[in-house]
Amino acid sequence: MAESEITGFDGRVRAVIENISPSVDGGRFAAKRIAGDKIIVEADCFADGHEILACMLLWRRESDAAWNETPMARLANDRWRGSFATETAGPYRYTVSAWVDHFLTWRHDFARRVEGEDIRVAAQVGAGLIEGAAQRAAGEDSVRLREWAARLRALSDAGALKALGLDEQLAAIAERYPDRRRACTFPVEYPLVVDRVRARFSTWYEMFPRSASPEPARHGTLRDCEARLPYVAKMGFDVLYLPPIHPIGRINRKGANNALAAEPADVGSPWAVGAAEGGHEALHPELGTMDDFRRLLASARAHGIEIAMDIAFQCTPDHPYVAAHPAWFRWRPDGTVQYAENPPKKYQDIFPFEFESEDWRELWQELAGVIGFWAGEGVRIFRIDNPHTKPFAFWEWAIAELKRKYPEAIFLAEAFTRPKVMHRLAKLGFSQSYTYFAWRNTKRELTEYFTELTRGPGREYFRPNVWPNTPDILTEYLQFGGRPAFVVRLVLAATLAANYGLYGPAYELLEATPREPGSEEYLDSEKYQIRHWDLALPHSLSDLIARVNRVRRENPALQSDRSLRFFDIDNDSMLCYGKATEDLENLVVTVVNLDPHHVQSGWVELELASLGIDAGTPYQMHDLLSGARFLWSGPRNFVRLDPQRAPAHVFALRRKMRTERSFDYFL
Amino acid sequence: MAESEITGFDGRVRAVIENISPSVDGGRFAAKRIAGDKIIVEADCFADGHEILACMLLWRRESDAAWNETPMARLANDRWRGSFATETAGPYRYTVSAWVDHFLTWRHDFARRVEGEDIRVAAQVGAGLIEGAAQRAAGEDSVRLREWAARLRALSDAGALKALGLDEQLAAIAERYPDRRRACTFPVEYPLVVDRVRARFSTWYEMFPRSASPEPARHGTLRDCEARLPYVAKMGFDVLYLPPIHPIGRINRKGANNALAAEPADVGSPWAVGAAEGGHEALHPELGTMDDFRRLLASARAHGIEIAMDIAFQCTPDHPYVAAHPAWFRWRPDGTVQYAENPPKKYQDIFPFEFESEDWRELWQELAGVIGFWAGEGVRIFRIDNPHTKPFAFWEWAIAELKRKYPEAIFLAEAFTRPKVMHRLAKLGFSQSYTYFAWRNTKRELTEYFTELTRGPGREYFRPNVWPNTPDILTEYLQFGGRPAFVVRLVLAATLAANYGLYGPAYELLEATPREPGSEEYLDSEKYQIRHWDLALPHSLSDLIARVNRVRRENPALQSDRSLRFFDIDNDSMLCYGKATEDLENLVVTVVNLDPHHVQSGWVELELASLGIDAGTPYQMHDLLSGARFLWSGPRNFVRLDPQRAPAHVFALRRKMRTERSFDYFL
Repeated sequence: MAESEITGFDGRVRAVIENISPSVDGGRFAAKRIAGDKIIVEADCFADGHEILACMLLWRRESDAAWNETPMARLANDRWRGSFATETAGPYRYTVSAWVDHFLTWRHDFARRVEGEDIRVAAQVGAGLIEGAAQRAAGEDSVRLREWAARLRALSDAGALKALGLDEQLAAIAERYPDRRRACTFPVEYPLVVDRVRARFSTWYEMFPRSASPEPARHGTLRDCEARLPYVAKMGFDVLYLPPIHPIGRINRKGANNALAAEPADVGSPWAVGAAEGGHEALHPELGTMDDFRRLLASARAHGIEIAMDIAFQCTPDHPYVAAHPAWFRWRPDGTVQYAENPPKKYQDIFPFEFESEDWRELWQELAGVIGFWAGEGVRIFRIDNPHTKPFAFWEWAIAELKRKYPEAIFLAEAFTRPKVMHRLAKLGFSQSYTYFAWRNTKRELTEYFTELTRGPGREYFRPNVWPNTPDILTEYLQFGGRPAFVVRLVLAATLAANYGLYGPAYELLEATPREPGSEEYLDSEKYQIRHWDLALPHSLSDLIARVNRVRRENPALQSDRSLRFFDIDNDSMLCYGKATEDLENLVVTVVNLDPHHVQSGWVELELASLGIDAGTPYQMHDLLSGARFLWSGPRNFVRLDPQRAPAHVFALRRKMRTERSFDYFL
Repeated sequence: MAESEITGFDGRVRAVIENISPSVDGGRFAAKRIAGDKIIVEADCFADGHEILACMLLWRRESDAAWNETPMARLANDRWRGSFATETAGPYRYTVSAWVDHFLTWRHDFARRVEGEDIRVAAQVGAGLIEGAAQRAAGEDSVRLREWAARLRALSDAGALKALGLDEQLAAIAERYPDRRRACTFPVEYPLVVDRVRARFSTWYEMFPRSASPEPARHGTLRDCEARLPYVAKMGFDVLYLPPIHPIGRINRKGANNALAAEPADVGSPWAVGAAEGGHEALHPELGTMDDFRRLLASARAHGIEIAMDIAFQCTPDHPYVAAHPAWFRWRPDGTVQYAENPPKKYQDIFPFEFESEDWRELWQELAGVIGFWAGEGVRIFRIDNPHTKPFAFWEWAIAELKRKYPEAIFLAEAFTRPKVMHRLAKLGFSQSYTYFAWRNTKRELTEYFTELTRGPGREYFRPNVWPNTPDILTEYLQFGGRPAFVVRLVLAATLAANYGLYGPAYELLEATPREPGSEEYLDSEKYQIRHWDLALPHSLSDLIARVNRVRRENPALQSDRSLRFFDIDNDSMLCYGKATEDLENLVVTVVNLDPHHVQSGWVELELASLGIDAGTPYQMHDLLSGARFLWSGPRNFVRLDPQRAPAHVFALRRKMRTERSFDYFL
């Protein structure tokens, strides 16, 4: 019938493979995991007919030519699962291979045979298959398989034949040499990015170096930052993120409170990168020297802190790039460049790059080179400013290039924009992503958003990093909620998300005054001026922050997001959720009063089975913030939270309670 | 920084495209639609920054080289939608192209400009873009665009400039000539199979030709089938499916009730294809000649009925293939072939083909040739027996080959097996699929299963064809439910699924005796013996079947499955659901009493908004089975169904009720 030749494939390949997971856009992008993780891969594998399948998980470092192989096990409904472990960060690939296994099928059928005549024919068939395995084997294995086949051909007693055919040790040898000539290997080699642990679990502190001076009148320096490290370390942060530390432009410099015209003494916005002193690879002279920067890196490391650099790809009009590379900017007929915008924000002091430039390759190389320069100085964490206003293809290329050389590099995407744009940036390679957390305040908003983040498709590639405030975001909840609001948002950020950060000292000092009513901008924002902070003020949250961050360090349940689960509580102003390690050894249940103004109480309803607790056994709720311990029993228990005293419990749930049965004499 | 060259792509392509729908396994398989359908394609399209995007839907017949193009419109959340219509069946392709449109962006910004100086610079920029469009245009359009640009460059009055820049007619011309040099075109060309209407809406009747003789003692013939056509047509069926009509093997022939040893007079199973008289391209001599077959096809056509052939790829030991092509079978060391099985069924009278044969190409060509042979005789519907025991790759190739020549061909997969296997067959090309309907009897089972079929991912490719009985399946529900059970299952099949079928005359004559208790096999099954049926028996359901099928023909809502939606009814023995045309002009609501033994009643809760009904307006429920009309109002209404009288309502819901406002004087 068919007029065309049948070419290009082997029609005897009968196994098919579908629906491999993890999969991000069918393998277009990488799933993300952490070094040391057990990486679980599943697939639907099946064939026509009723023969028995064998499935193999194939995986390798991207740079390796050869696959590693791990057998997959059959779950229900034609689903198969295998896993592998990686000890080192870097790019990996995986896929699945499956085949109709005639030896396994034969053995399965042989076990069901009863009639004498039949079993002798079946033994001959098996001998042929075993001889095939012997040919694929070598050495001792080959000899033993050949002997097995010969005995199967020679024996005639049905009972003895059956026992010989079903010999488990010999079968195990044969299984190691399957006939894979007709194996189906899925054509997509799925990419996987393995990061180091800090990509999954990190605690960020943002501060402006120029405000770090202990003397109110003086411009802060990198040396001042170094002196501030013990303070940051004591609060338990492990990433110190500095806004740009480069020379700041003088043309169109912004004044205090975003004034369009700067006074002579105004210091400008650090995001207005570039001046006569240099651009993205230079340091602001008033901050210090490269030696100071290197000291800061080393000293931070000694405190268990990493420095995160701010990468803001934009230029002041006096940035050296403007004169040296005019083709990197879009010039208008009147010889000007349209300033940058990120609606509704206008950045009159900076030019955007023109990524549609004919010289885009040189521009890309230069920008990747900027990050590479700082990586060369030892920086491994980069907070990328507004990545959504630069082409996706650039980031995909640049991050891959940089991670090839620095597989431990971490990139945080500062993109507060539409959801699909944020997801695209995460897919193409950003290790962590800013989120909408700051604007999710009610029970329903928080439940929906964190359920989406931890259960939706993004869980494979989008790692939330949540911030209750930033220099750009002073939410109305913080403006109007007083100290309880700051405590609530701190506890939510630190226990909902394994990655979170604060902009301080504004946060711990409860800075809450907006530039004007209805604005989310800080009054006298550090973006445009130097501030002096009195860290010793008695109302500082620094001790509470230290306690919260210690709880995070001591409870591995809080160090990843996959296990997050919300529990019912019969009060719309209260939120309850839990996190657990995979083995359920560490369980943390948080209850928060979201109302900063009133005492609230309610009945929590835990899902005990998911926490590994028997319905009839009491368990202890140990509040890691206050130290108080409560004895609970059954799923329903009462909680009352006074925002003025303690708006949240962060409970470690302890399953093993001492009873009379714990004593020796009871046994 | 980067040591590697940037090659292989243009980094200035800034638009990205994701998540195109419909998509079956990322474009590995085709979505299915019907000739005449408006085919809606959606995609997420966006770019970095804040410029304006343009998106184009590209589509073509697979055999055409050039794309057709349709602009896509922006929905919410970066989603875009476009559509195209196809008048003819066949394979198609579609994909999406998107680009950052500088002209549209300029126009958008220009509308927001106010200051005088600024607008003159902006006009110059726009003139440049319009000159670009003029170069891409030709003739009058090019001239007009050039003039427009010249005037934008010359004018200096800000108000006049603004009006000129925003001229809508000129903009419409410019929009027709966008700069697509930096367009992103999604790399996957998604396949689409367009079938004729009968693939979506068909009503099948299965009968054994050899039982079609009006004389009890005589072997039925194709001429008898021809004589039976008016009976089948009167019941409203449009597909007459005949089990295999080929010579039946004599070696290992089965006797009555699946006896292993046949008596001399036993006729054997029609699925035991092949004997000395010929194989899959021959007719059983007792059924008639090829001329009789051609007459039957023509006569059926005259009755609005198509003949569906049964394609059963397996051979009796005396099939001519066995001697002519021994390599197509798997021979055991004792010179025998293992008989076919479809666990738990054993087919001792047939050999399976060996698809791992070295001669697989010849086997594939021969088998596709069998279907091609009958297609050459004018058959366009093929019911494929046990496709899941032949390689998926074979069906994918064979169906594509056959549909290339016969795009109107319809293939029904008779695969009662694991869900993923059934879905794979549908994905790879089968037009319709048998389902688990026969075993879904309770409210919960039916609701879950049909929700999955009509809302799950399979809705893009899996067209259910539901059968309350087959020669293999006499369910316990039918065995024990009496006549009401037959009515219930008929109404469910006919109103839940646009494609359904019955095995008759067993069905209309209420045949309900199993071979033994606990069996789903019919006693004295026609699979193994000739039966004589008295079609005139007074208890026959043929009149009811005729009425039900007329309701299906007259109500387009019942002719597709996509709109199916279940409504609440507060009785677990009652099921209520509706179907609607896209324009909501035709609405059918079915209420069924699933309990064949007792009267049941309950309150139905319709979702009036989804049916286009105002909550306050009464509407008429016209029972198309009984003719009765009920006046309903509001979502909640009472229904009582007596299984002995009428276990189901099939309501046409009529929205337009005559009221005093219908009269002229009221206006």
